[in-house]
Amino acid sequence: MDIPINLKRLAKDLNLSVSTVSKALHDSYEISPDTKKRVLELAKKLNYIPNPYASGLRKKKSKTIAVVIPEVADNFFSQAIHAIETVAQERGYHVLIYLSHESYDKEKAILQDFRNGRVDGVLMSVSGETTSTDHIEDLTRYAIPVVLFDRVLPRSEFAKITTNDYESAFLAVRHLIEAGCRKIAFLSISPSLSINQDRLKGYQAALEEYKLEVAEHFIVDCTHYPNRQSEMIKNLLTQPLPPDGIMASVEKLAFLTYQVCVETGIRIPNDLKVICFSNLEIASLLNPSLTTITQPAFEMGNAAATTLFRALDNKIYQSNPENLEIPSILFPRGSTA
Amino acid sequence: MDIPINLKRLAKDLNLSVSTVSKALHDSYEISPDTKKRVLELAKKLNYIPNPYASGLRKKKSKTIAVVIPEVADNFFSQAIHAIETVAQERGYHVLIYLSHESYDKEKAILQDFRNGRVDGVLMSVSGETTSTDHIEDLTRYAIPVVLFDRVLPRSEFAKITTNDYESAFLAVRHLIEAGCRKIAFLSISPSLSINQDRLKGYQAALEEYKLEVAEHFIVDCTHYPNRQSEMIKNLLTQPLPPDGIMASVEKLAFLTYQVCVETGIRIPNDLKVICFSNLEIASLLNPSLTTITQPAFEMGNAAATTLFRALDNKIYQSNPENLEIPSILFPRGSTA
Repeated sequence: MDIPINLKRLAKDLNLSVSTVSKALHDSYEISPDTKKRVLELAKKLNYIPNPYASGLRKKKSKTIAVVIPEVADNFFSQAIHAIETVAQERGYHVLIYLSHESYDKEKAILQDFRNGRVDGVLMSVSGETTSTDHIEDLTRYAIPVVLFDRVLPRSEFAKITTNDYESAFLAVRHLIEAGCRKIAFLSISPSLSINQDRLKGYQAALEEYKLEVAEHFIVDCTHYPNRQSEMIKNLLTQPLPPDGIMASVEKLAFLTYQVCVETGIRIPNDLKVICFSNLEIASLLNPSLTTITQPAFEMGNAAATTLFRALDNKIYQSNPENLEIPSILFPRGSTA
Repeated sequence: MDIPINLKRLAKDLNLSVSTVSKALHDSYEISPDTKKRVLELAKKLNYIPNPYASGLRKKKSKTIAVVIPEVADNFFSQAIHAIETVAQERGYHVLIYLSHESYDKEKAILQDFRNGRVDGVLMSVSGETTSTDHIEDLTRYAIPVVLFDRVLPRSEFAKITTNDYESAFLAVRHLIEAGCRKIAFLSISPSLSINQDRLKGYQAALEEYKLEVAEHFIVDCTHYPNRQSEMIKNLLTQPLPPDGIMASVEKLAFLTYQVCVETGIRIPNDLKVICFSNLEIASLLNPSLTTITQPAFEMGNAAATTLFRALDNKIYQSNPENLEIPSILFPRGSTA
């Protein structure tokens, strides 16, 4: 019979007191960094799961879940929040919204603050800077389940709710090619994000299928330069051999493309066709109306919240590799006509 | 010398024990509704302010402020949140975002939940259904300061950060009149909101100044019928003597107006001119570009947060009639050309 992995077992293996191990796991200032490191490494190796009822942290349910997202001024996130709130309200839970503003440090600080029992569970779409899952894994040691949605981390072992980014990008690029484009640029967000990697692969696969060149200088990463995005797009569109099609990863980049076109006299869709991953409800009111790949934001928020509450109901605080993919829909409009 | 208004004084006047008064003020289930009512009435009458240091509730600072707003899918609120977060972050505070979804009951439930010390202070823009301030005043009894911004309640005694809604509406209607409009409708939100009352007064004053009729059926309250807004606008625009100008109180109503015009073949700006209170960053990209009265969202969020932190620093938990008004700006665009 397996010996259960509890504090006693960890203490025995490390030749430490149970109290020291517990304090190390709770990041107590009384414990040295070296000891903490030894304890955490063994806990991770043995896949130690804290007993939520033995832990003082879990004595009081907060009846609150956190939504940690990069920004709120994006229609995908505002629609996802609406869905999450609907599910949470039925369960008598509060929803707290935290914004990472694309900063890994901020995201990490937010998650660290959850250790004190402020929230029972976390729904999260990672920042553009996030490449490590350590700060997320840390929460499972505090018996706080995490469900990632939309912006997940590849190979991470958390429940993930995503959309079909690869296929959507493939279909978007095929749509541009069928509309006559031959030189298609991709305005990307952080290359470390799974959604970006999948969209890039879909973009490349579509170009290859149609025997079109994949030009490195047509793949523009705009994430880390929020104040230079407009200038980067202008440089792209005014070079000697400019693109005739744009696939934008987030709606803000499509808006900037429209603005640059107004400034430079480039006509959409005559000179340049534009398609964008966007949940903008007024896409049809733009001049010209914007062709979008519309993500199932409400459905994804709903599924993420439902998955989280299932974890809370079943007291699953461990990494949970459950995955769900909900397809996006392409709406052809004037910008690719 | 005045006797200080403390628990002892309340207990003496009511012929109750100090413990009963304290429990009544903390809404304990041990106390009968009648007794609670008597205690609260006297506390209010005598302007009793709880001593935050004597109260167990305040022993632990949460280092968190709440932002209670009707919705997040509106550019005014997303920009205000950004400003509030910037100020809070400098102070090492967390910001929690709560959505009332225009429901007074939901707003009241959110505020009640703050009694347990979850937050140190509250920034709030009231729901379209809110006409009473009781639930807000209640917070001051728990030593939680409140600052209202944008959607405040007339005659309420809290710090208020607003914009010049009266003048803005006056200038907006004058702009429509100067563009040739003679039959101007107002798409309003809840009549109980101060911003709506001020805008309505500005609208009426401008019409009167130009000797134009104020027609009751041209003032359309859209708040309480979210699913009927499109139909209401359609009815307004397709009546035998339709308006030739629209002033919309929130951006969503301008978007619906655009959509109804597409459906019905009404041409903006030829047949109908449209102006809207909106912080939409892509107003210039709409077809036609949208004339807006742009509110100082960032400045208002910044001022609201700064005022709240001043109250926290100075331990002012009482009603605070501080008021600040920051002007809006009219941007003429294609929809009123």
